Amino acid sequence: MRANGLRELWAAGKGAINGWAQIPTGFAAEVMASQPWDSLTIDLQHGPVDYQRALEMLQAISHCAPTPLARVPWNEPGIIMKLLDAGAYGIICPMVNTREQAERFVQACRYPPRGYRSFGPTRALLYAGADYPAHANDTVIALAMIETAEAVDNLDAILDTPELDGVYIGPADLSQSCGGKERVDLTEPRMVAILDQILAGCQKRNLIAGIHCMSPAYAKGCLDKGYKLVTIQADGRLLAGACQQAIAAARGEGGQGKAGGPY
Amino acid sequence: MRANGLRELWAAGKGAINGWAQIPTGFAAEVMASQPWDSLTIDLQHGPVDYQRALEMLQAISHCAPTPLARVPWNEPGIIMKLLDAGAYGIICPMVNTREQAERFVQACRYPPRGYRSFGPTRALLYAGADYPAHANDTVIALAMIETAEAVDNLDAILDTPELDGVYIGPADLSQSCGGKERVDLTEPRMVAILDQILAGCQKRNLIAGIHCMSPAYAKGCLDKGYKLVTIQADGRLLAGACQQAIAAARGEGGQGKAGGPY
Amino acid sequence: MRANGLRELWAAGKGAINGWAQIPTGFAAEVMASQPWDSLTIDLQHGPVDYQRALEMLQAISHCAPTPLARVPWNEPGIIMKLLDAGAYGIICPMVNTREQAERFVQACRYPPRGYRSFGPTRALLYAGADYPAHANDTVIALAMIETAEAVDNLDAILDTPELDGVYIGPADLSQSCGGKERVDLTEPRMVAILDQILAGCQKRNLIAGIHCMSPAYAKGCLDKGYKLVTIQADGRLLAGACQQAIAAARGEGGQGKAGGPY
Amino acid sequence: MRANGLRELWAAGKGAINGWAQIPTGFAAEVMASQPWDSLTIDLQHGPVDYQRALEMLQAISHCAPTPLARVPWNEPGIIMKLLDAGAYGIICPMVNTREQAERFVQACRYPPRGYRSFGPTRALLYAGADYPAHANDTVIALAMIETAEAVDNLDAILDTPELDGVYIGPADLSQSCGGKERVDLTEPRMVAILDQILAGCQKRNLIAGIHCMSPAYAKGCLDKGYKLVTIQADGRLLAGACQQAIAAARGEGGQGKAGGPY
Amino acid sequence: MRANGLRELWAAGKGAINGWAQIPTGFAAEVMASQPWDSLTIDLQHGPVDYQRALEMLQAISHCAPTPLARVPWNEPGIIMKLLDAGAYGIICPMVNTREQAERFVQACRYPPRGYRSFGPTRALLYAGADYPAHANDTVIALAMIETAEAVDNLDAILDTPELDGVYIGPADLSQSCGGKERVDLTEPRMVAILDQILAGCQKRNLIAGIHCMSPAYAKGCLDKGYKLVTIQADGRLLAGACQQAIAAARGEGGQGKAGGPY
Amino acid sequence: MRANGLRELWAAGKGAINGWAQIPTGFAAEVMASQPWDSLTIDLQHGPVDYQRALEMLQAISHCAPTPLARVPWNEPGIIMKLLDAGAYGIICPMVNTREQAERFVQACRYPPRGYRSFGPTRALLYAGADYPAHANDTVIALAMIETAEAVDNLDAILDTPELDGVYIGPADLSQSCGGKERVDLTEPRMVAILDQILAGCQKRNLIAGIHCMSPAYAKGCLDKGYKLVTIQADGRLLAGACQQAIAAARGEGGQGKAGGPY
Repeated sequence: MRANGLRELWAAGKGAINGWAQIPTGFAAEVMASQPWDSLTIDLQHGPVDYQRALEMLQAISHCAPTPLARVPWNEPGIIMKLLDAGAYGIICPMVNTREQAERFVQACRYPPRGYRSFGPTRALLYAGADYPAHANDTVIALAMIETAEAVDNLDAILDTPELDGVYIGPADLSQSCGGKERVDLTEPRMVAILDQILAGCQKRNLIAGIHCMSPAYAKGCLDKGYKLVTIQADGRLLAGACQQAIAAARGEGGQGKAGGPY
Repeated sequence: MRANGLRELWAAGKGAINGWAQIPTGFAAEVMASQPWDSLTIDLQHGPVDYQRALEMLQAISHCAPTPLARVPWNEPGIIMKLLDAGAYGIICPMVNTREQAERFVQACRYPPRGYRSFGPTRALLYAGADYPAHANDTVIALAMIETAEAVDNLDAILDTPELDGVYIGPADLSQSCGGKERVDLTEPRMVAILDQILAGCQKRNLIAGIHCMSPAYAKGCLDKGYKLVTIQADGRLLAGACQQAIAAARGEGGQGKAGGPY
Repeated sequence: MRANGLRELWAAGKGAINGWAQIPTGFAAEVMASQPWDSLTIDLQHGPVDYQRALEMLQAISHCAPTPLARVPWNEPGIIMKLLDAGAYGIICPMVNTREQAERFVQACRYPPRGYRSFGPTRALLYAGADYPAHANDTVIALAMIETAEAVDNLDAILDTPELDGVYIGPADLSQSCGGKERVDLTEPRMVAILDQILAGCQKRNLIAGIHCMSPAYAKGCLDKGYKLVTIQADGRLLAGACQQAIAAARGEGGQGKAGGPY
Repeated sequence: MRANGLRELWAAGKGAINGWAQIPTGFAAEVMASQPWDSLTIDLQHGPVDYQRALEMLQAISHCAPTPLARVPWNEPGIIMKLLDAGAYGIICPMVNTREQAERFVQACRYPPRGYRSFGPTRALLYAGADYPAHANDTVIALAMIETAEAVDNLDAILDTPELDGVYIGPADLSQSCGGKERVDLTEPRMVAILDQILAGCQKRNLIAGIHCMSPAYAKGCLDKGYKLVTIQADGRLLAGACQQAIAAARGEGGQGKAGGPY
Repeated sequence: MRANGLRELWAAGKGAINGWAQIPTGFAAEVMASQPWDSLTIDLQHGPVDYQRALEMLQAISHCAPTPLARVPWNEPGIIMKLLDAGAYGIICPMVNTREQAERFVQACRYPPRGYRSFGPTRALLYAGADYPAHANDTVIALAMIETAEAVDNLDAILDTPELDGVYIGPADLSQSCGGKERVDLTEPRMVAILDQILAGCQKRNLIAGIHCMSPAYAKGCLDKGYKLVTIQADGRLLAGACQQAIAAARGEGGQGKAGGPY
Repeated sequence: MRANGLRELWAAGKGAINGWAQIPTGFAAEVMASQPWDSLTIDLQHGPVDYQRALEMLQAISHCAPTPLARVPWNEPGIIMKLLDAGAYGIICPMVNTREQAERFVQACRYPPRGYRSFGPTRALLYAGADYPAHANDTVIALAMIETAEAVDNLDAILDTPELDGVYIGPADLSQSCGGKERVDLTEPRMVAILDQILAGCQKRNLIAGIHCMSPAYAKGCLDKGYKLVTIQADGRLLAGACQQAIAAARGEGGQGKAGGPY
């Protein structure tokens, strides 16, 4: 079976830099996957991407190095299993707020007896190899998103869920849920304390801690702190920023791109 | 009829900065068209984009400010007319090497008696307004690509073509056709002389000169020289560059992104 | 943030005429949205439309006047949030039969602390503007469908749900659920009494009452009664009727189109 | 082989009423093909439809009664043959202005020795039956569009082209080409004379004369005159008209729908 | 209303051979539906197929003989109803493990008062005819998948569910759930006993028993035993096997195709 | 640059077995490309495949071993160049009947000074590597289809075309053009003589001779004769044959599948 590059990286004690793909077409995904990201997550929650486009994207990046992950729209077994059958090597599940939700999620990622994933890895066989059934349970990564105050309240119970590989923090939702604004790259002491609590909980259990970041500098700081998966922005936003910089430079408006619009 | 922003800009003596859309989906086009480009060209030649995706892209950007243009795959009336019917406000046509080819191209953009465009502006009516038929001939822009030695040999005849609005230089093809490498942002004196000749030919006839650029600085230089339409890279390449910079920064590899791969 | 035309209309005490889009393509949606409807609802429940096509449709109509709404296939947070992130300015949710279902629905439409909508308005920023996060909770419309006897039994509890903007009546389902046939434009006294009860419940609480109609005359009657959102048929049915009339006229078969088939 | 309903109708001396499909999706095509049209033409020229969507549409209407035709974007053998292979039972080709163009067109519709159509009726076998190769040359209909003054000048030569089944008049283009406006339902004596000349030329040779109409009444008049194929508007326009009528009625604005917009 | 061929076959006491469509495009579905299968199931669970592609496939096969079924990704009313509205004449629902799940499933397939299916058979009217509403409840087939040990434990309760038409056995999941490997064409006595128990439970209640098979010989054996619906492999696997045989023969590697890869 | 497996095979004196992909979706292409074909040709001529689907297919098979080729719908530079930019490593061009047509074709596959291919290998860079521009002219394969009597008449002139890599014989068209039926696997002495003449012409010039076959046995015979590229049927037909065999076996109708229908 084709190895999971993220698991290899983590086994070597390293952290991974993750790209975030929201542009719903194989070509953009392939451009993303040709850059030196360690993994690439196709975002079916807030990205304008549904299953069929996610499939196209997974197919388009199968010759590229980054490990393919997917974020599902919601904690539903149907779409989780469809994306695994399509060859995703890991699932990020939003809004996991309770132990029960965590179990529902991770067991959807595992074949019996470790879970209730249904058998039929139609495309995964083509991507991963004929021995996929034998190794899938140990290869596929299951990351639960911690992004509400309720999830923080239930943190230990969630982290103790068998088969869970780690968590992925959604800072904007977490901040809002804790009474703040929809910020990312959180620096408020109150929020930093929560992030540290989550990170420590993961490290204690040898679980992966991941987090969504905006600036590369913040992402670097997270890696230095011990996060094992840091995402920088998303494809659309990186593109928007690059446009704004290029246009400003061509207009002679100084090195700093002016805000070009809503995005 | 909805005005053509490029024509207004040019009437005011200004040059335009043009975005280049090759990612074949409405969302990426909409991200591009939400940045402060003056126009956005959907590239059906070297972009992995066909008509149906170009239509989606044109629809997705119709609420945005940049003027929508399209580059066709080849000098064929069928696709030229289909893109105009879809609401493109200008066509860039590759490989116009002779006066005859220039006439075949520009007349496909004009209704009789000024050309042979067939009547049926199905979606253009929705985008532009009910009076589209009355104003289309004066609104739609026709730009012929000058990108071969043969075209340079025939430059005056091409530039004298009635109804032609201007030219668009493809530097990589032009350089290769003149015996060089597939370079852009040309600085070889031999090639600069050719570019200057084309620009002068346009300026003499009050035609638009446009050019494809790689760096914002080169694009700025072209605007300063008198080009009226400068393109900076393409969406996929801007995205790739932004990724490389972000990843390098997150890895602490210095401010300059290392080359991430082929793109 | 781009204003919600329906809310403006309602604030002025007026009722809205709503188009119903089931043809799954941007072009048909754009044709619909170029007609003088006040709003246009993309129907993902009984329309042969899924998310990706709904996105195309929302993009295609963003330059048009009608306010974009969407009816979701079922009361599921994943698809509700995806459509809001795609720029829908209101959600119509089928089969809301209990207070608990109503809360699950409306809270999916609101960011914390008013609900549990996850943050990530990827395309909504492009459609609505950079200040979308600040105003979304007050802009987005949440309409629960009342279409079962159970819902009528629970009417007061449903209507008292915080954050609910109003209801939308599905007459065919309601009629069937109450032991009748799958009729619309209901005139049976028994059913009229139920409709009046729902309308009165809304008016008492200053909520919007909406209803799906077949004939323009019935829709007019509903507006006169105080409904604030009336839908007339659906795009496919309007098209079918227009064909039948035109063909009958061309055949000289009298002014009244004969039934052309099943639709 | 599945019979060609149009040929059967014509053999019985009857004229056909043709629907015009421009909405690029199988569902709209299926709605159209479920109405009592005799044939349905998928318009790849001015309709926002490309090959892949035309294929979907042809597949979606294969269980319906109307005979499937296609109008190609231009007189190019590649797309003509692809549509025939996809199961179209007739091709309408725009802008046939000379005998040479007519030959190029009709021979693309016929297998050797009657033409140069390439063999590979991939989907046509599924639609028409295993004996398609034996009967295709006599089943498929080839109609050349007469829509320029040049075509009128060359009328006899065009009509004498072997294998041509008839012509289809594009009134808007013809009017413009003859120095008028882009009108349909032509009543100017000058234009009526030209139409009559074309019709007479067809009748003399036992060829089919077809024409694009706007109003059902005009279409009826054409049938009465001897045209054998009359089209009424197009799906998008029929839909727009139906919307305008319905909205006006629901607003109490009188029986006549006010103009709703550009379409 | 168009008859349901499977019900006719079963009424005649015969068993049906079912094709399994996982290739997400109308053309492949049409090729499949042109072969002498009695029914064709579009697999939205393990097939890389979502709703929009399933719709295309249903449209493409509507002129073909096999009865169209669909397997849904999960037991969710939204997608079940959408597929019925799209014209599927039967639903196979995975992972029905309890009586409550069985009721939730089958009632989604029936209009009130026999279930809670929402009314709006948009495309089903075009496929089945105008009287679809009157006959749908007796025409549509609801088959619950029995594929876990839990389902076997609850077998009688599930089989006694009103409105259930029968079951469909997923051998790979059933085997895994019972502690075995993901095998099909089960021959272990332990598993055969379970299969026989399920078959007997169906036969006692005059319910349909269906099963997924790999080899035609096993399928034949199941028919002989009394199964009324047997599936052989899936389109992609049949294609892969045909390729391997053809290549081996062209290489002169003997009549038996060597394993070509993972599929 | 990623090597061209076909050129390596040919350099080793071996012949290649080529798959033929007509099912327009990435999944079917990936199934095909996971079988032990040496190359896989995406057929845009008689396959129901257009550019956008061909792009998806090329992306989906980029992690697989077979060399990707494409057959274009017609000898048009626009589509030839688009497919090369999409990463096709070879083009098969139909209906090359004259030296002039051969030159037009092959030069569209070569950058200056060896041809007139336009520069912009957008996706080819991602598939092949950053040094694609330097090696493309020597890597890309150009095969002209010989499939008319006219082409046979002009055989030497065509074969002498500089930059041509070889020919691909379309037996059905060739047979029809020579006055026969649309047969493949030709055994008539008259046709065999023509085939031998083409093969000899290629061998004399060290050009590749390819041919489309139906049966594996005929393909093997061609390899033995010295053909270097033999195709067996097409994906749809292989699938149809496998279905017919499986169904017949399950019905107990003997080992030989009865003809299941038109395909």
